[in-house]
Amino acid sequence: MVITPESSNPYSIQQEELQKIDAYWRACNYLAAGMIYLRSNPLLKEPLQPDQVKNRLLGHWGSSPGLSFVYVHLNRLIKKYDLNAIYLAGPGHGAPGVLAPVYLEGTYSEIYPNMSEDEEGMRRFFKQFSFPGGIGSHCTPETPGSIHEGGELGYSLSHAYGAAFDNPDLLVTVMVGDGEAETGPLATAWHSNKFLNPIRDGAVLPILHLNGYKIANPTILSRISREELEDLFKGYGYTPYVVEGEDPTTMHHLMANTLEHCVNEIHAIQEEARTTGVAKRPRWPMIILRTPKGWTGPKEVDGHKVEGFWRSHQVPMGGLHHNPEHLQMLVDWMKGYKPEELFDEKGSLIPELKALSPKGHRRMGANPHANGGILRKKLKMPDFRDYAVDIGRPGSIEMENTKVMAYFLRDVMRNNMTNFRLFGPDETASNRLHPVYEVTKKTWLADFLPEDEDGSELSPDGRVMEMLSEHTLEGWLEGYLLTGRHGFFHTYEAFAHVIDSMFNQHAKWLDICKKEVPWRAPISSLNILLSSVVWRQDHNGFSHQDPGFVDLVTNKSADVVRVYFPPDANCLLSVTDHCLRSTDYVNVIVADKQSHLQYLTIEDAVKHCTKGIGIWEWASNDDCGKEPDIPDVVMASCGDIPTREALAATAILREEFPDLKVRFINVVDLFKLQSEGEHPHGLSNRDFDTLFTPDKPVVFNFHGYPWLIHKLVYRRTNQDRIHVRGYKEEGNINTPLELAIHNQIDRFNLVIDVINYVPKLRSAAAYVKERMKNEIIDHLHYAYDHGIDKPEMVHWKWPY
Amino acid sequence: MVITPESSNPYSIQQEELQKIDAYWRACNYLAAGMIYLRSNPLLKEPLQPDQVKNRLLGHWGSSPGLSFVYVHLNRLIKKYDLNAIYLAGPGHGAPGVLAPVYLEGTYSEIYPNMSEDEEGMRRFFKQFSFPGGIGSHCTPETPGSIHEGGELGYSLSHAYGAAFDNPDLLVTVMVGDGEAETGPLATAWHSNKFLNPIRDGAVLPILHLNGYKIANPTILSRISREELEDLFKGYGYTPYVVEGEDPTTMHHLMANTLEHCVNEIHAIQEEARTTGVAKRPRWPMIILRTPKGWTGPKEVDGHKVEGFWRSHQVPMGGLHHNPEHLQMLVDWMKGYKPEELFDEKGSLIPELKALSPKGHRRMGANPHANGGILRKKLKMPDFRDYAVDIGRPGSIEMENTKVMAYFLRDVMRNNMTNFRLFGPDETASNRLHPVYEVTKKTWLADFLPEDEDGSELSPDGRVMEMLSEHTLEGWLEGYLLTGRHGFFHTYEAFAHVIDSMFNQHAKWLDICKKEVPWRAPISSLNILLSSVVWRQDHNGFSHQDPGFVDLVTNKSADVVRVYFPPDANCLLSVTDHCLRSTDYVNVIVADKQSHLQYLTIEDAVKHCTKGIGIWEWASNDDCGKEPDIPDVVMASCGDIPTREALAATAILREEFPDLKVRFINVVDLFKLQSEGEHPHGLSNRDFDTLFTPDKPVVFNFHGYPWLIHKLVYRRTNQDRIHVRGYKEEGNINTPLELAIHNQIDRFNLVIDVINYVPKLRSAAAYVKERMKNEIIDHLHYAYDHGIDKPEMVHWKWPY
Repeated sequence: MVITPESSNPYSIQQEELQKIDAYWRACNYLAAGMIYLRSNPLLKEPLQPDQVKNRLLGHWGSSPGLSFVYVHLNRLIKKYDLNAIYLAGPGHGAPGVLAPVYLEGTYSEIYPNMSEDEEGMRRFFKQFSFPGGIGSHCTPETPGSIHEGGELGYSLSHAYGAAFDNPDLLVTVMVGDGEAETGPLATAWHSNKFLNPIRDGAVLPILHLNGYKIANPTILSRISREELEDLFKGYGYTPYVVEGEDPTTMHHLMANTLEHCVNEIHAIQEEARTTGVAKRPRWPMIILRTPKGWTGPKEVDGHKVEGFWRSHQVPMGGLHHNPEHLQMLVDWMKGYKPEELFDEKGSLIPELKALSPKGHRRMGANPHANGGILRKKLKMPDFRDYAVDIGRPGSIEMENTKVMAYFLRDVMRNNMTNFRLFGPDETASNRLHPVYEVTKKTWLADFLPEDEDGSELSPDGRVMEMLSEHTLEGWLEGYLLTGRHGFFHTYEAFAHVIDSMFNQHAKWLDICKKEVPWRAPISSLNILLSSVVWRQDHNGFSHQDPGFVDLVTNKSADVVRVYFPPDANCLLSVTDHCLRSTDYVNVIVADKQSHLQYLTIEDAVKHCTKGIGIWEWASNDDCGKEPDIPDVVMASCGDIPTREALAATAILREEFPDLKVRFINVVDLFKLQSEGEHPHGLSNRDFDTLFTPDKPVVFNFHGYPWLIHKLVYRRTNQDRIHVRGYKEEGNINTPLELAIHNQIDRFNLVIDVINYVPKLRSAAAYVKERMKNEIIDHLHYAYDHGIDKPEMVHWKWPY
Repeated sequence: MVITPESSNPYSIQQEELQKIDAYWRACNYLAAGMIYLRSNPLLKEPLQPDQVKNRLLGHWGSSPGLSFVYVHLNRLIKKYDLNAIYLAGPGHGAPGVLAPVYLEGTYSEIYPNMSEDEEGMRRFFKQFSFPGGIGSHCTPETPGSIHEGGELGYSLSHAYGAAFDNPDLLVTVMVGDGEAETGPLATAWHSNKFLNPIRDGAVLPILHLNGYKIANPTILSRISREELEDLFKGYGYTPYVVEGEDPTTMHHLMANTLEHCVNEIHAIQEEARTTGVAKRPRWPMIILRTPKGWTGPKEVDGHKVEGFWRSHQVPMGGLHHNPEHLQMLVDWMKGYKPEELFDEKGSLIPELKALSPKGHRRMGANPHANGGILRKKLKMPDFRDYAVDIGRPGSIEMENTKVMAYFLRDVMRNNMTNFRLFGPDETASNRLHPVYEVTKKTWLADFLPEDEDGSELSPDGRVMEMLSEHTLEGWLEGYLLTGRHGFFHTYEAFAHVIDSMFNQHAKWLDICKKEVPWRAPISSLNILLSSVVWRQDHNGFSHQDPGFVDLVTNKSADVVRVYFPPDANCLLSVTDHCLRSTDYVNVIVADKQSHLQYLTIEDAVKHCTKGIGIWEWASNDDCGKEPDIPDVVMASCGDIPTREALAATAILREEFPDLKVRFINVVDLFKLQSEGEHPHGLSNRDFDTLFTPDKPVVFNFHGYPWLIHKLVYRRTNQDRIHVRGYKEEGNINTPLELAIHNQIDRFNLVIDVINYVPKLRSAAAYVKERMKNEIIDHLHYAYDHGIDKPEMVHWKWPY
C-alpha cells in the first residue's frame, strides 16, 4: 500500500517544515561523509588538502543516508506525539547514519564531552571513526541509543521485539537491511508478531530498507516483483506500506505521511485492545523503504555507476591522496549539502534545526531503554532454600533436578510478572519446567482451537516464550535483557550450537561494555540452561550428542563467561539463584532433565556451589585433605551423570581394594580448574594442589569433551597425571549405560583407569580388571537383548 | 489454490487404483506402528502379549502417516511418468513413515538381507528400530534413499535444492514439517527458487506438512489464516496448492490430482525453458498438505485427544506392559489397518500391492542420487603447480594468497562445468576469488537491471552461488555433495560459527557412513575456506574477531575432520588440490585474503604440505634437526599472519643474539600436533620430539585461540615448555600490528617470550627486552596518530 501525499490524508505537512527536515538530513549526510573521509578541516572552511584526509578510508556509506532519513522523520513524530521511541539499525555497519543524528541531537557530546558541538568537537568526532583507539563502523556499544551492533547480520528484528515485550509505552523502530533480510534468523523473526500482545507489550515498526545491494550483489527482495514483495509481508501478517523514490522532496513528503499513518495505526490498535481488554493479533503496519544505495552520494566515479549501485556499499571513491579529481569530488559532494547553511561559524548546528530534535530522554540516543541497566529492577527472589530436596543419606534418592528448579522458577515468575520471561524452543514441558504453567502460560497470539483447552497451555498473556527457532528466542531474550529486564533460556544441549554465533556477539558486547563503556549500567546476565544432554539420547542417537557449546564459551573473555555443572537438585537451585541475581555475564548451566541421585543437603549445596569445587568427604576414604598427599588416587567428577558413575566406581574400588585411599572431588564451577591468572574464578596453584595433590593420579570424569579439561588445567602441576574421560563421539542408539561404556565414562572403565594409574594396583589387580571387562560385556548384552539397562544399574544407589 | 477431484481436470483417477493406494498406505502405517511398539509377533497372528512389546517405546508416530502418504502417491507418479525422483523427509524423526515404504518396495531387504520380506524379517525390522545396536528414529545414513537425517531441523529445503542443482532430470520432493518451518534456516531457504535454473537444474517440489503441532505446541503456520498462508508462499514466489482434510478416500483423490497437476506443471515449465532456451524464474508449484497429526492413530487415550493433537507427536500411549486397555488399544489400532489383507501368510506384501512400487533404481529408496558417491565422477583437475608463484628468495615478495588460488579454482571450474560449484555469502570478490568470473558468473534468476552489465557478474547459468545466508549456502553444498558432486565453500572466519551446528551434523553423518554404512560410496569432502580472518579487522573490530570455528572442528571424530593453515600461496595451492581430490572429510582451510609474504617454492610447498609440519632450514640457524637437541629454542608458527611475525622475531633474535640457535618450525596440518593415537595425521611422539626436541623451550605463534594448541599437545613430552601465543579476545578498531601487539603474537612480544624462556638469555638481555617494549610503544603511537602501521612494518621482508 502507498500513502501518497496527494491522497487526502490527515497527515499533510507544510513545505517549510519539510525543508527543515531536509536540511537536518543534509547535516546528517554531511557528517556521515566527514566521518568516513576527514581527519581535519571538518567544515571545509579551507581548501581541502590531501593530508586532511584519513590514510585508510573505512566505513559504509551505502546505507547511511537511509538510516538517518528514517531517524530524522522519527524525530518529527517523537516531538509531535511525545513518543517514547528507540531505534535499531539492522545494517549497523552504516553507523555513520546513526552517529550523525545522535551527535546532532546533542547526546553524543553529553556522553563524550570532548566530541563537543563545535568545529574542534566535530574534527574529533570525524577522526575517531574507524580509527585506532576510536570507535567501530557498526553501532557498537559505544554508540548512544544502540542496543544492536549490527555487525553480524540477522538479529535486528528479534532484538526489536525483545525490547518491546512488557514495554507497553515503547515504540521500537527497526531498520532491516535487505541484505540482512536474506539470513535465516531474520526471515523467521517476522513471525514474532504472533507473540506480541497489543495490551501488555509495546510496538515494533519494522522498516525493510530496500537499498538494493549487498557488498557486490543485488539483494533478493529488491529483485522480485512488487506483488510478490507485498504478498510476502501480508503473508507474514503485516500491512506493508511502500515508500519508494529518490527525489528528496517527494520522499520527505511520502515518508512523513506514511510514518505518521503507521504511528497512528499502531496507536489505534493499542487503544482498541487496551480499551476492550481483548488481546488479539492485529495486522501491524510495516514499511518498505526503497531508496538508492548511497543516496545523495557521488553518482558516478571514473565512469562507473555508484549511487544506486553496489559500488557505494563502503567508500564511494578512494585514492584521494594521489588523485586530485577524487579529492575534488569529495569536496563537491560534501559542499553539495551546503554546510554553511547548516552549521554556524562555531561549527554548531544552527538553532532553527536544533529545534527539530526531541529533548532530554525523548532523544533516541538518550532514551533510557537503550541503556537498559539504568531501568533494571532487581528480581524479587523467593528463597531458593524453600525448594530444597530432603535428600536423606547422600546418593539414596532420585529426583528430576530441573523439575525441582522449576518450582523455584515458577515463584520467581510469580513475583516478577512484568519483567521476567522464560524462553525455550518447544521444550518447556520436556525439560520438566511445566510447573511454571501454574502461574503463567505460553505466549500465543496466533489462532486458538477448542482442543487447546486440554493441555496446550496457551494464552495471549503468557510469559513463557516458545517457538521452534533458537535464533528468535535468543534474539528476543537479548533484546529483553538489553532493555533492563530478566530472563532464562533453556535449550537442547546439542542444538545450543545453533546460537553459537549469537552467543559470541552478546559476550563480546558485554565485554566491551564492561571494559570500555562506563556509562552503560550493568544488565541482567544471559542465563542459558542446557538440558536434554549428550548422555540421554536413547533414540535420538548420534546426531543429538554434542556437549561442545561450553568449549565455545571457554574461548570468550574470562570477564563475562561462567559455566556451571550442578550435580544434583539442591546445587542446581543454588546455582540458579546465583545466576538470576548476577549481571553482565553469560551463565551456562548444564543439567539433565531426567531422574538423578541427590547428594547434598541444601546447606552443603550452598557451601559447595559457593566454593565451586570441593572434596566430598562422605564419598572419600582418605583423610579428606587434612594432610597433604594422603590419597592414592583422586576421583574427580563434573556433571550430574559423570558424577554418578564416578561415585559408583568409587564404591567398587572401596569394595575391591579396601586399603586404597580415594579422594572424591566434585566440580560445579568449571572455571575453578583454570589458573587464577586466566580466570577470576580460577584456583590458585596452591589451592589446586591442596585439592588434587601435586602428584597423585587423578581420574577425572567429565560431562563434555575430555580435552576441554586438559585445556583448562594445562598450567597445573604435573598436569599429565590428570586422566580425563568424557564424550568422544562414540554414540548411536544407546541405552544410557551403553553410551557411557562406549565413551568410557562408566564405572567399570573408571575402575580400570584407577588400576592402570595407581602403581601399587597395577600388577595385583589383573583379576579385577578382568571382572570389570566382563561386567561391561554382560551389560552390553543385556542392553542389546532388552533394549534397556539392567534395573539394578538404573536404580543404583551409593551404598555407604 | 485447490485442485478438487470435482473440478474438471485431466488427472482423475479410478476408484480401484485409489483403493490399492490406500491399502499400500495402510501397510505403511501398520509397519510404522509396529516399529514403534513390537519386538515380536509382528503380524499379530497370535494374541499380543505384553512381553512382545518393547520395553522402551521410542519414536515419533505423529508425522509418520503424512510422510508415507506422500511417498505412496509419489510412487504412483514415478511409475506413470517414469520419474527420476528422490524424497527428503524434513521431519526425519518421523522415520517410520519413510522406513515403511522403503521396506515395502524391497530396497531395505536388498541392502539388509536379514530384514527380509517375510514375518521373521519384519520382526527384525520392527525390533531394530530405536533399539540398542539398531537404527535411529530419524532418517539416518542407514536409511536407504535418505540424504537428510532430519534430526536437527531447518535444512531440508536447502538440501533439496542442492540435490536438484545440475540434475536436470531429477525431481526432489521435500516434506517440510511445520515445526521445522519456524526455524530461520528453513524460513529463508524458500528463496532458493531465485537460484534454480529450469533448463540446467532439476526441480524441487516442496510440500509443507501442516501437521499442526510440535512436541507440545501448535505450529505458527497452522494457526494463521488461509489467506496469510497462501500470501506467504506467493510472496516467496511459489504457486501454493492446498490439500486439506482427514478422510482418507477424499484425501487420496485430492493428493493424487494435486500431485499430478504439480508434476505436469513442473514438466511444462521445464519444457518451455528448454525449448526456448530462455532461463527465467517461473512460479514453481508447492503443496500445503494439512492433515491431522498422528493421522489414523488412536483418536483418544485415557479421555484425552490424541489424533490431530500434539499428544500424538511421539508414542500415542505407553505403559502397555501393565495396562491391558492400552495393549488392546494397540491391537485394535494395528488390526484396523487389516494386515491380513495386506500381507500374505509368509508375511510379504501381497503381489497386487507390490505391483504399485516402482522398479529398480526408480524406487526412491534405491535411487542412486541418494547414494551420491556411486554417481560421483572425479574432478578433472588442472595441475596446481601451473599456478605457482615464483617466490625468489623466501620472504621477499608479497601476494594475495587466495587470489593465487582463485586462478586454480577458475580452471577447476572451467574443467568441470556440470558438477562443481563455488559457494560463499556475498564475498567472492572480497575474498579475491573473482578470477572465477572469467569462466562463470553468479547464479541469478531474480530480476535483472541494466546496470548489472557493469560488474554485477550475474547470470542464470552462473555456477557461483552467493546469498547472504550461510545456512542456505551450506545446505545447498551439502545437498550437492551428497548427490555426488563437488564444491568449495568460503566464508568469513568469525561467522563460520553461524553454521557450527550444520557442520556438526554433516561431520556426524560422514562418520556414521564411514564406520557403519558400507553400502554408501564415498562422497566429495566438504571444503571450507575461512578468509577475512581475525587478524585483519581494521574497521569491523571486535565483533568480527573469532577464530574458534577450528576449535569446534577438533571436537569431531578424527576420521572425518582435517584443518590446514597454509602459510603462503604455493602451500595454499597444494592444500586446495589435496582437499578437492579427497572424499568423506570436512576440510577446513584458513587463509587470509590480503597480501602476504611468500616463502616456499612450489616444490618445497608440496613437500611441506605433504609432511604437514616441518623445519624451515632457511629460517633456522641450528643444525636443522640433524643432531638432536641442538637449538636453544624452537620458534613455531601456524597460520599466515603468525608465521610472518614469528619470522620477524627470528630475524630480530638473530641480529640481537647471533649465538642463539633458533629452529623454525611451521605447521600446515594442525592435526600433526596431536598424538598418533588420537588422530591418523598425528606425529609419533618420537617424531614430535625430533622436531620440537624433548626439552627445549618452544614459542608457538598460532592463528587461533592459544589453548587449542595446548589441547592438541597435552600428551607430548614436557608439554609445559610449549608456550603458545594466539588470539585472546583483545581487539577493537586496530591496525594489523596493533591487534597483533594487543594479543602478543607480534614480533616484539615473541622476542620477549624467547628471552624469558631461554635461561641463558634471561639475565643478559634486559636491554633487549626494554628495546622491544619501546618498539611496541612507538608502533602503537604511530598507529594512533596515523591510523595505519608504519610503512616499514607493512612492507617488512625476511632479511637473510
